[in-house]
Amino acid sequence: MKLLYFPLLARNTLIELLAAEKGLKLEVSCPEWPAYKSNTRFGQLPQLECESAGTVCQSMAIARVLARRAKCEGESESDFIASEMLLEKFVEVYDELKASHVYQVGTPADKVAATTEALVKHFEHIESLVDAERGTVGDLSAIAAVCVAREFGVDTILAKAPKVKAYYEAKKSLIDATVGGYSAWFKPASA
Amino acid sequence: MKLLYFPLLARNTLIELLAAEKGLKLEVSCPEWPAYKSNTRFGQLPQLECESAGTVCQSMAIARVLARRAKCEGESESDFIASEMLLEKFVEVYDELKASHVYQVGTPADKVAATTEALVKHFEHIESLVDAERGTVGDLSAIAAVCVAREFGVDTILAKAPKVKAYYEAKKSLIDATVGGYSAWFKPASA
Repeated sequence: MKLLYFPLLARNTLIELLAAEKGLKLEVSCPEWPAYKSNTRFGQLPQLECESAGTVCQSMAIARVLARRAKCEGESESDFIASEMLLEKFVEVYDELKASHVYQVGTPADKVAATTEALVKHFEHIESLVDAERGTVGDLSAIAAVCVAREFGVDTILAKAPKVKAYYEAKKSLIDATVGGYSAWFKPASA
Repeated sequence: MKLLYFPLLARNTLIELLAAEKGLKLEVSCPEWPAYKSNTRFGQLPQLECESAGTVCQSMAIARVLARRAKCEGESESDFIASEMLLEKFVEVYDELKASHVYQVGTPADKVAATTEALVKHFEHIESLVDAERGTVGDLSAIAAVCVAREFGVDTILAKAPKVKAYYEAKKSLIDATVGGYSAWFKPASA
């Protein structure tokens, strides 16, 4: 399987962490852009290209397809519910960051406090659902969310989420080995 | 199971159509708002309250939990992939409508053309994935997307999506009986 994306902490993060954690072989490749755009199905990346499954677009669809292969969607209904709620929370964290993000600038100084406050609240919700031992795709999305938002300060955004923080710290080697070399996509604008 | 939401064509639409189509018993109730807000898990609706499964928040998590119960997530990997890509497309349609929506106004006149054009493109993508016979939760989300966006003109937004249009028309009785009495949430602002 080959994942096409850029070397960023963005829509690839959950997919790459999941593949690494669950031992799925995933080659990651950065295409020429925008030259490759016309080769994508919907004009966007990420795109997963897989001999057996064909082309899969959209990051959360790719994550769920890999989770299905790794059998980590949550086996019981209650685990599945927690995992799906966590995945939706991951999307909310992403959308929160995206809402205040200005391309090639970052989050403008006057919006950093409100964005950070919203992140604290989201991670407090994530805290109420996460279970590191369970390790579903939703649980892993909690640490992917930290990676994507970490330029706002790990200690700050996880002020009300000690379990998420411990989980993130426990997976630090995996994170560093997988996406550690990537640039942050979301960050406060430099003064 | 009880779904708490408002009588609108919004985040409840896919959930209610899915339950009706698959014969899942779902009571729908509109709580006093904002009085009930402090009783919700994350301060938001929809929320599903279920004796056996507890509380489930966030519309796409609720939809997937019901799909799992109805066994319509897509049985083969290829059906699952198509279904998940369709669900992400449904979210993209929703986010597109939300981006130009002004509370208590609708989509301002100067943004209606661009929103409509984007909807046509999204439904063209949906057309390439949908299969009415297969009837997964993703397939049903295609007609839920039409319901949510229909004030922009069914014929217009489905100009490049004849299969989606035929599917929507074939399910018109189900739609009318389920969400037919609800107000549109997204619509062009009245002149």
